[in-house]
Amino acid sequence: MTDVNLDFTTTRLGECRVRSPMSGSEFIDDDARVLYHCDFKHVAEIMAAGRKPPQFECAGPRSKLYFDPSKLKCGIVTCGGLCPGLNNVIRAIVLSLSHHYGIRTIFGFRYGFEGLAAGYGHEPLELDPERVSDIHQEGGTILGSSRGPQDPADMVDTLERMNVGLLFTIGGDGTLKGASAIAEEIGRRGLKIGVVGVPKTIDNDISYVQQSFGFQTAVSESRRAISSAHAEAQGARNGIGLVKLMGRESGFIAGYATLANSEVNYCLVPEVRFSLAGLLDSLKRRLERRRHAVIVAGEGAGQDLLTATNEKDASGNVKFGDIGLFLKDRITAFFRSEKLDLSLKYIDPSYMIRSMPADPHDSAFCLLLGHNAAHAGMAGFTNMVVGYWKGEFTHVPIPLATSHRKKIDTHGRLWSAVLESTGQPREM
Amino acid sequence: MTDVNLDFTTTRLGECRVRSPMSGSEFIDDDARVLYHCDFKHVAEIMAAGRKPPQFECAGPRSKLYFDPSKLKCGIVTCGGLCPGLNNVIRAIVLSLSHHYGIRTIFGFRYGFEGLAAGYGHEPLELDPERVSDIHQEGGTILGSSRGPQDPADMVDTLERMNVGLLFTIGGDGTLKGASAIAEEIGRRGLKIGVVGVPKTIDNDISYVQQSFGFQTAVSESRRAISSAHAEAQGARNGIGLVKLMGRESGFIAGYATLANSEVNYCLVPEVRFSLAGLLDSLKRRLERRRHAVIVAGEGAGQDLLTATNEKDASGNVKFGDIGLFLKDRITAFFRSEKLDLSLKYIDPSYMIRSMPADPHDSAFCLLLGHNAAHAGMAGFTNMVVGYWKGEFTHVPIPLATSHRKKIDTHGRLWSAVLESTGQPREM
Amino acid sequence: MTDVNLDFTTTRLGECRVRSPMSGSEFIDDDARVLYHCDFKHVAEIMAAGRKPPQFECAGPRSKLYFDPSKLKCGIVTCGGLCPGLNNVIRAIVLSLSHHYGIRTIFGFRYGFEGLAAGYGHEPLELDPERVSDIHQEGGTILGSSRGPQDPADMVDTLERMNVGLLFTIGGDGTLKGASAIAEEIGRRGLKIGVVGVPKTIDNDISYVQQSFGFQTAVSESRRAISSAHAEAQGARNGIGLVKLMGRESGFIAGYATLANSEVNYCLVPEVRFSLAGLLDSLKRRLERRRHAVIVAGEGAGQDLLTATNEKDASGNVKFGDIGLFLKDRITAFFRSEKLDLSLKYIDPSYMIRSMPADPHDSAFCLLLGHNAAHAGMAGFTNMVVGYWKGEFTHVPIPLATSHRKKIDTHGRLWSAVLESTGQPREM
Amino acid sequence: MTDVNLDFTTTRLGECRVRSPMSGSEFIDDDARVLYHCDFKHVAEIMAAGRKPPQFECAGPRSKLYFDPSKLKCGIVTCGGLCPGLNNVIRAIVLSLSHHYGIRTIFGFRYGFEGLAAGYGHEPLELDPERVSDIHQEGGTILGSSRGPQDPADMVDTLERMNVGLLFTIGGDGTLKGASAIAEEIGRRGLKIGVVGVPKTIDNDISYVQQSFGFQTAVSESRRAISSAHAEAQGARNGIGLVKLMGRESGFIAGYATLANSEVNYCLVPEVRFSLAGLLDSLKRRLERRRHAVIVAGEGAGQDLLTATNEKDASGNVKFGDIGLFLKDRITAFFRSEKLDLSLKYIDPSYMIRSMPADPHDSAFCLLLGHNAAHAGMAGFTNMVVGYWKGEFTHVPIPLATSHRKKIDTHGRLWSAVLESTGQPREM
Repeated sequence: MTDVNLDFTTTRLGECRVRSPMSGSEFIDDDARVLYHCDFKHVAEIMAAGRKPPQFECAGPRSKLYFDPSKLKCGIVTCGGLCPGLNNVIRAIVLSLSHHYGIRTIFGFRYGFEGLAAGYGHEPLELDPERVSDIHQEGGTILGSSRGPQDPADMVDTLERMNVGLLFTIGGDGTLKGASAIAEEIGRRGLKIGVVGVPKTIDNDISYVQQSFGFQTAVSESRRAISSAHAEAQGARNGIGLVKLMGRESGFIAGYATLANSEVNYCLVPEVRFSLAGLLDSLKRRLERRRHAVIVAGEGAGQDLLTATNEKDASGNVKFGDIGLFLKDRITAFFRSEKLDLSLKYIDPSYMIRSMPADPHDSAFCLLLGHNAAHAGMAGFTNMVVGYWKGEFTHVPIPLATSHRKKIDTHGRLWSAVLESTGQPREM
Repeated sequence: MTDVNLDFTTTRLGECRVRSPMSGSEFIDDDARVLYHCDFKHVAEIMAAGRKPPQFECAGPRSKLYFDPSKLKCGIVTCGGLCPGLNNVIRAIVLSLSHHYGIRTIFGFRYGFEGLAAGYGHEPLELDPERVSDIHQEGGTILGSSRGPQDPADMVDTLERMNVGLLFTIGGDGTLKGASAIAEEIGRRGLKIGVVGVPKTIDNDISYVQQSFGFQTAVSESRRAISSAHAEAQGARNGIGLVKLMGRESGFIAGYATLANSEVNYCLVPEVRFSLAGLLDSLKRRLERRRHAVIVAGEGAGQDLLTATNEKDASGNVKFGDIGLFLKDRITAFFRSEKLDLSLKYIDPSYMIRSMPADPHDSAFCLLLGHNAAHAGMAGFTNMVVGYWKGEFTHVPIPLATSHRKKIDTHGRLWSAVLESTGQPREM
Repeated sequence: MTDVNLDFTTTRLGECRVRSPMSGSEFIDDDARVLYHCDFKHVAEIMAAGRKPPQFECAGPRSKLYFDPSKLKCGIVTCGGLCPGLNNVIRAIVLSLSHHYGIRTIFGFRYGFEGLAAGYGHEPLELDPERVSDIHQEGGTILGSSRGPQDPADMVDTLERMNVGLLFTIGGDGTLKGASAIAEEIGRRGLKIGVVGVPKTIDNDISYVQQSFGFQTAVSESRRAISSAHAEAQGARNGIGLVKLMGRESGFIAGYATLANSEVNYCLVPEVRFSLAGLLDSLKRRLERRRHAVIVAGEGAGQDLLTATNEKDASGNVKFGDIGLFLKDRITAFFRSEKLDLSLKYIDPSYMIRSMPADPHDSAFCLLLGHNAAHAGMAGFTNMVVGYWKGEFTHVPIPLATSHRKKIDTHGRLWSAVLESTGQPREM
Repeated sequence: MTDVNLDFTTTRLGECRVRSPMSGSEFIDDDARVLYHCDFKHVAEIMAAGRKPPQFECAGPRSKLYFDPSKLKCGIVTCGGLCPGLNNVIRAIVLSLSHHYGIRTIFGFRYGFEGLAAGYGHEPLELDPERVSDIHQEGGTILGSSRGPQDPADMVDTLERMNVGLLFTIGGDGTLKGASAIAEEIGRRGLKIGVVGVPKTIDNDISYVQQSFGFQTAVSESRRAISSAHAEAQGARNGIGLVKLMGRESGFIAGYATLANSEVNYCLVPEVRFSLAGLLDSLKRRLERRRHAVIVAGEGAGQDLLTATNEKDASGNVKFGDIGLFLKDRITAFFRSEKLDLSLKYIDPSYMIRSMPADPHDSAFCLLLGHNAAHAGMAGFTNMVVGYWKGEFTHVPIPLATSHRKKIDTHGRLWSAVLESTGQPREM
């Protein structure tokens, strides 16, 4: 019962006194909640212990708003690496602010937090429904992005100077921490500026959020790389197709791609250690038997095997050694030492995946995410992100969402299904 | 609290005494449950009333089996119209029975229930992992299909004669009722034959099942038709693009396709009545303003406007009037009577959608559905289907699954989002 | 030697005295020619008879222009049905006029010839490189289109009033005849206005033009419909998948689609008569043997079997009877009379094909077509279209291009290959 | 008039006395020819000089065959790197040999020339229509492939031992030279074994062959990589997207991909030298102006800038330095030295492109190529390949086809159009 003390209550800027202009809509009650645990045994145990089971606030339009739409200016910023659906989320926020609430001024800050910081001189774009009407058909982000934090004081200065009352930040773990720092600086200054996040993680590794946008498109697009690896592997005697997929801390993309493509023989993820000798031995036996093999590796897999670099990127993430190149070199050397011919083809499709437009599922998902972000912001919720849990859109406090990474449960059904699909040994 | 009395307990053939050969896997406890309601207020109310909240059995492999794999013969049958993923489900069941349990004999009955009935002379295919290894890359079903029931006595005769102990039926509402009739006949004869269903409904309208396979592929594939309708509408003065999508009783495909494609101006679904005059009036005003419009209609929409036919198809479904042709004719006539030029293009992509191969998401989903069907069958569950609820695979008794159709909640967020996306009037 | 007298010499508005601003480019000589016949026997025979073999003028930029770019205004119009690549051609003409020649004013006339006619009040769009930069990613035409001619006098009045010196018409047979009528009216008035066509025929049936834009995209997109028909046919006992493709006078789309998709068993085209009884008999025998069949019919196939309607559409084309519905009805009736079950699925993907964006091949092709149209116009060529012959872009006088329709040679290799691929009888 | 002495006459094994079993087909006359030059000036000049203009033999079925189909055994081998369409060509040869000629025994030699050589022990596959019916839907080659030559004496021993009378080799420049060596060894032994090639070059660089199979699919598939590079470049301040495409000696893929995708700003090909300083200077100015750039480089571009390696691969090709990594390093270093931030993303999609299934155009093209290879072989043509010229299938002697590589004419329209499309300087 480790999660029994979780409290998903979010912060609000103040009382909501403005009547929502959304007519004919179904408003969500402030006290609507969705259970964190849905297995009854767990819930019953918690209740038997006299505790209230943890539960999320439900997202959605409120009948009473904190902000007066006629006076509010908003801003949107996208940070970090590309992810399918960024433009969809920008578009959905702009459409909801404009059409549902009648907001007139929405700034699109350029190139991530740089666009809010002093000294870069990036002029924001002015966003309106016409400007964003078709942007979802392109990958990437029309606002541009950048990695790394900026001084919160500088950024709040910008918000004050431009009279922005509501800021939407679309980004990953680092971005959300930056957004939280902005919210704290706003609090220190006693300002009434809302900060609402939309969590962006192509790896699907943000805690307390069941699925993040772009993840499914990424899994789908991996099919092309895996099919290519399979064709290359089959096209040569002792052919190996090696594909590196995204997944720094969590192997969800590699795992689901394995289930979605039946051609994978080894799926390597950050959550499961393996020994190089064990992998090489298993590979050798498979090639003897089947003459080809397909390996998929999440980028964070096998990091313990690589020499630590200690370098960090602009976002402060530790720079990972490249497991793809490492495996390519080691497998090649091993088979050479065994005097066995080998044809290994290494495919790294990451940039081609993350820059894709959202697929139809993610398009609909981003539309609803963006709407719910706008609804949350207008109702005064702050220092929170819009999440998704058991089929419902939710609110999650940023500090909780960034408290740790979500990982594959290596004793759960997903990982068992991966092992069953590949036929790889549970331990190597 | 209408659902408080729901009981999702399924039937089992008998006690499980055979140790599962699945090694290293994580077995599911027989008493694992997932809550039907996940909003806490609801659950708390039920418990306050001294009741147990309704909950589903969790699917998954059991440590003890009912059947002895070394002696069991299985059969698979696909019925009704095509749906993306049929071959994936067949493949997953075969792979699980073979690889997880070591079953040697699996019959693929041809052309639906005809393949089990007397008098057609269809020889079953013998299925094994090699035969099914690549079938998921093609749409359709390698077994063939047919509509309509056959005599349960005939079919149980076939099962007895061929010594089949476990039958998997993949099909929709009618098929599941047929499967239930088979299970009852088996019961009357005191036989120990399991009947496990995998619910197939491209419309996603089976009760107590959150998402059915093929649905997401269908929504994705509708994009192409809607984009075409949009290009045709924009390419002409007073251009209208009209798309008929699947959805006899429920408008989920039309609704989600509308959210996934931002070009729809009118979304018509079976759940929401509209007046023809209201639609025509709104259309006329839109064309004056924007010169083009895109309409998406689920096939069951507006049936009250059509003359009843009373015909039934081979599956016993009432034959619907064709809302697409009806709207095409009425809209054309109306604009002619108004002396307004019109260019209406009508697109019916249904056969092109339902015959597609499963997309990567549905591929992974079908793999797990098929595995769980095999697990359920081996553990002696019968007269039930494998469902999906709040992210978990579940068991649902067939009589409950076929008790009524799932429909769009017209007061819920999905329909609100559709209205917000199209800008169509809530009432026409 | 029927073609020996062909003369492909085009008309020019006058002498070219303006130096082209295209620097560093390779100009094409005015006397460059490409042979109409490339088989040597033919050429040698003609020369032996003391004749000059027919040959096309080569398209491409000229070093001397007729028009002074600093003073020229241009117009573009798209007419008739949609075709993949329309926006690409518009874009290529605008980019070439702007970037190669420095033209400042380019009108996009709306809704076909209506946009040039009196009384409709359509305001033209102003086109420039920014406006057209991304339009090729969408199907359809940003200018809109319409069918049918307008009064040439009215249209020339518009050109005069707006001071347009060069008009580009993108359209099919009817449009080119309309363009020719405009050119004649211009001649009668002694004006110096150029009229340059880009032939649009998804059917690829314009004479003296080897391949027209959009044709290849159309063939590619037909794959989806044919695969669906195949899945439907295989999914039922005695399943027939019937696909109607474009092709009023010529079966090139149906023929090439048959070669590109190995699942077609009967390919019916306008050029080859067949008897209904012969088809039904062959079908019956095939179903007995194989239990399924796929039929592809060009829309002009079997018109002699249908009752003549004598109706004409707005473009003046005879309205064809619907061979798809006809075959559907007759095949169904025949098998009913033979007391044989049948499951026939009819797919008409025409609107979904013609509204697609151009594929990469057609994108590059349209780019070069549009450039060459701009080059031709600037060099004073008029009453001509840009064609393509033996790998070279050419000029073709409109009267020749519209003199008759190009058809499949039923004694040539294409049709033989179709018969070899389907296995259908040469005569039915 | 450098090409005036070309002689495309091919070798034949002997007189053709067997009547072709192809009934109802249109046979091609042995003296049918297609002109090498189609510009009339050129042809007229040659004829005026009393010479016969160079011309290709036309491919196609002959009424008289060299081989007696009832006694002939055939073999097929695929060599070198993957290319879209390999399986289509295998399939087309098998279908034509079986259905048109009734050949019963067709061996598919495994893993390239290894499958014909001594000492590897690869058992050939037996190919028939059922085995190959669906293989064209997968990329790669079902036969497997390998690089590098084998001893011709060994390989002819194998052909003799297995009684193979007709060998089809599908491969590139090295393979064709190997095939020619086999034909010579056959000649030395006085055997009557035919060797017919189908030229495989994804780079489209085989001489006297206008288009090779897989080329168009490769150009199409490059769109995805270029769009991704564009999204990445636009998503960052000073973003550069760098794509390496195939093209060792010839830049056709890079050039056509540039025309097909309007987002390329620099297209670098082997045929056009550039200075690194010139490129960097132009890039810097572009980033100042537009903040992003997309570069496409054929793999053989800029090899003079790289340190020569002198290494060779198994096919005997000089190992090229990696222009992609070189440019990535140098551009990054340059901007660092200029104290300018830069975000460069490097994409190498080569393996993902060459392993794709053929697109519909290439599918039809491969079908006809394979048919014509079978026709040529049956009619006793040997030491030749099936080519394509001015819309006709042709025969080309292997020594001519491998005499030199086809390259982009840097003074022709293709390269001019590339420069016009990118806006890059003609000289850097």
